[in-house]
Amino acid sequence: MREDEYRFRYKRLSGELEARISDGTYGPGEKLPSIRQLHRKLNLSMTTVHQAYLDLEAAGLVEARPKSGYYVMPVSLNRLRAPVHAPTPSTPRRVEAGAMVNSVLKAAVDPKMLPLGSSAISSDLLPVRSFAKIFKGLSGPEVRKVMAYSLAEGNPELRRRIALQTLGVADGVTADDVVITNGCTEAAALCLQAILKPGQALVIESPTHFGYLQLFRAYGITVVEAPTDPVTGVDIDALTAILDRHDVGACLLMPNFHNPLGAIMPDDHKRRLVRLLNGRGIPVIEDDIYGEVYFEGTARPSLLKTYDREGLALTCSSFSKTLAPGLRVGWVIAGEPFRERILRLKAGSNVCTSTLDQYVLARFLTDAPWERHLRRLRSVLRQQVIRTALAIQKSFPPDTRLAVPAGGSLLWVQLNEAVDGNVVYRRAVENRIAILPGAVCSASGVHRNYIRIGCGYPVTDRVEEGIRILGRIVAGFMD
Amino acid sequence: MREDEYRFRYKRLSGELEARISDGTYGPGEKLPSIRQLHRKLNLSMTTVHQAYLDLEAAGLVEARPKSGYYVMPVSLNRLRAPVHAPTPSTPRRVEAGAMVNSVLKAAVDPKMLPLGSSAISSDLLPVRSFAKIFKGLSGPEVRKVMAYSLAEGNPELRRRIALQTLGVADGVTADDVVITNGCTEAAALCLQAILKPGQALVIESPTHFGYLQLFRAYGITVVEAPTDPVTGVDIDALTAILDRHDVGACLLMPNFHNPLGAIMPDDHKRRLVRLLNGRGIPVIEDDIYGEVYFEGTARPSLLKTYDREGLALTCSSFSKTLAPGLRVGWVIAGEPFRERILRLKAGSNVCTSTLDQYVLARFLTDAPWERHLRRLRSVLRQQVIRTALAIQKSFPPDTRLAVPAGGSLLWVQLNEAVDGNVVYRRAVENRIAILPGAVCSASGVHRNYIRIGCGYPVTDRVEEGIRILGRIVAGFMD
Repeated sequence: MREDEYRFRYKRLSGELEARISDGTYGPGEKLPSIRQLHRKLNLSMTTVHQAYLDLEAAGLVEARPKSGYYVMPVSLNRLRAPVHAPTPSTPRRVEAGAMVNSVLKAAVDPKMLPLGSSAISSDLLPVRSFAKIFKGLSGPEVRKVMAYSLAEGNPELRRRIALQTLGVADGVTADDVVITNGCTEAAALCLQAILKPGQALVIESPTHFGYLQLFRAYGITVVEAPTDPVTGVDIDALTAILDRHDVGACLLMPNFHNPLGAIMPDDHKRRLVRLLNGRGIPVIEDDIYGEVYFEGTARPSLLKTYDREGLALTCSSFSKTLAPGLRVGWVIAGEPFRERILRLKAGSNVCTSTLDQYVLARFLTDAPWERHLRRLRSVLRQQVIRTALAIQKSFPPDTRLAVPAGGSLLWVQLNEAVDGNVVYRRAVENRIAILPGAVCSASGVHRNYIRIGCGYPVTDRVEEGIRILGRIVAGFMD
Repeated sequence: MREDEYRFRYKRLSGELEARISDGTYGPGEKLPSIRQLHRKLNLSMTTVHQAYLDLEAAGLVEARPKSGYYVMPVSLNRLRAPVHAPTPSTPRRVEAGAMVNSVLKAAVDPKMLPLGSSAISSDLLPVRSFAKIFKGLSGPEVRKVMAYSLAEGNPELRRRIALQTLGVADGVTADDVVITNGCTEAAALCLQAILKPGQALVIESPTHFGYLQLFRAYGITVVEAPTDPVTGVDIDALTAILDRHDVGACLLMPNFHNPLGAIMPDDHKRRLVRLLNGRGIPVIEDDIYGEVYFEGTARPSLLKTYDREGLALTCSSFSKTLAPGLRVGWVIAGEPFRERILRLKAGSNVCTSTLDQYVLARFLTDAPWERHLRRLRSVLRQQVIRTALAIQKSFPPDTRLAVPAGGSLLWVQLNEAVDGNVVYRRAVENRIAILPGAVCSASGVHRNYIRIGCGYPVTDRVEEGIRILGRIVAGFMD
């Protein structure tokens, strides 16, 4: 039997079992059919059935009990309730330096902390060996080349590869539309500089990416926050009301696997949103950094650009969440007149992006198993997200709310209203556990009873113990 | 005899001979003493004397005539007259998109052009082999490390090395004062963002670095141009008058081996300038990108920071002119409160500089022969600059003015007033020769009868032929 076919068979079985666990056919703690039973009944090999169970176990849905068989996990994801969004004041404001910001930034990168505070993924998930091979194989002429300046718009082969990735998601994108940047944040920063006029406000989501708030603060940008649902993304009616009331120059949104929410906007929301913004001539900058990190069972999500008819959607992304955060390579896909302005700002600000970083990534995309790497990454991150969600459900008070996202690596956890996330953060740090308090994820500082948990690292015993400690800290507020 | 001593002896001899050629004791075209004569008279080995002559030949000061001996070059540098600066209107202005800008940018990087238009240096001058060795030697754990995020302020070891380089030039600088950036341009851009308040003007030199004008244009910065002498740098009296008349938020100056002038401010000018700016509380951003590229016979020039008593001097530089332009690593040395603001802007704009680029450079500075590389670079660039200057003098009309700088790799050439540098540029490009027309080096577009010639590449027959063609183009205006 070919490997493909084998994979297809056990995946189909594990998918069917998962569906019955999710819909409650098999309840929490219930014993599942034995491997032998399914082997006979379904005419599948013992190995195939066994592999399907291993798959469910890795996903945290079942557990093996020695000499007894497989059981549905006593707590299961289908009992999770999604968080709801905090009331968000939609008034224009400057982003202030929060008291927590420096502490949070430090804790997120402190190697002595349990790394639940960062959105980074473990370097075990990065294709280190492929990159090592590329470095070893660099010829003299190649080294000479990577030491010289590159074009302001970036390495042509890399731009071509990035354009190719949009096939079927955004029609007609070519290498000419791609400008390489120092990561996704620079891509967004250049877009903002290219678009916003003095006095104009930027619409952002609430909550939003913590790093963007630092950008807005550094650049003195006036923002208006739109409430954003933890499952379906930005509230379009609320956004419409903001556009009616304020002089909005642009929107910066994360439609796919939102940071920190994990939300993905349904296609009809995306379509409606783009129609609204196209109609008013307002550019939208979309951060698609997690776009390729969709989990098994879903497909590459569409972009806002997919529905754009007026050339007003600018798509920003990078390789930071898929290949190598330390190679500072991101990009923006934009048509004229934005592309030319962005390119001028890029060249003016820092000439060009690292020739070496770009070359190494172009080589990886050409020679190395990019698709296979992504498949493994998606599968491992999904397992880590599910296991972390289960561990939280097991250890946190029962009124805790969270939703397992369909991609990315983050969990947005809503705690009882009596719980102060900032205090949870401080007590966690005392226990050498880094988390992100929800309050730092918005300009207005709402979401005080929320925290963000990063799932980019393997769920080791230490992580499970850390989550138990977090659960006790949270429960302490209810005493 | 030890190599040091040998080097000392022939260098002393070549220095003495050079002094006598410069002061006219040996006139143009005159025969010099034979090797045997100097060997007997000075009690030096034949080899030592020969090496001194080879040195002078490499510097373009003497030529060997077969079977006859060494002669002073028929044209010599001591007959060069330094350019004078064009009248500069010192009124605040925005930088406009010049019609030439895109064409000039393209020509400077076009591999089909003779590369006299760029400030880049030939990759033959870069330590390609040392870098190749570093890439080959990267261990698994190192590869893993360079793929992860680095700190916003940069690699600690690299920052320590950069702080050490200021020993004797700026007292008390530590790694804590150094923020790593994506090249020198980003360092300056972050300083401007950290310092300038709305409505404030930036004082710049006229002429100035072409790339900075693109930055000011992209950022919408209002500039006031101070006339700058091609030999001694910015005119301090004119600068004082500007400060009296306008709301100046900062100055951006290149005190050492100015681009495009090659000017170096004398120490007493630097001292006077810093006293003036310190007294008025105005920050000064100094671009020291050529600071380490001083030629033999001079020493590491001082900084404006050397004389700064108020913490108002911010020093920007990079490895682009000494090690590898394509590794986008620069830095700014700044005290509080600027450092903290710059760091926030850096983190906000693009998180951090390439971990890979920083690591590779830190490894180079630790393991590779950095000082030896710099010595060779300085020596080769000096030879290229002198040879180019001589070739220009030979082929251009006699009223051409230029000064050989004491460092860097650029020649600023003043042509007869009847000559339009933009037309020279266009005709040069038709002949596949890239140069920089002087008019693009200022916001006011003065310096129309000036051109900049880059000397970063070996002076091959093709380069000499190119300069002859340029000479004919320039002479064509006088017909």
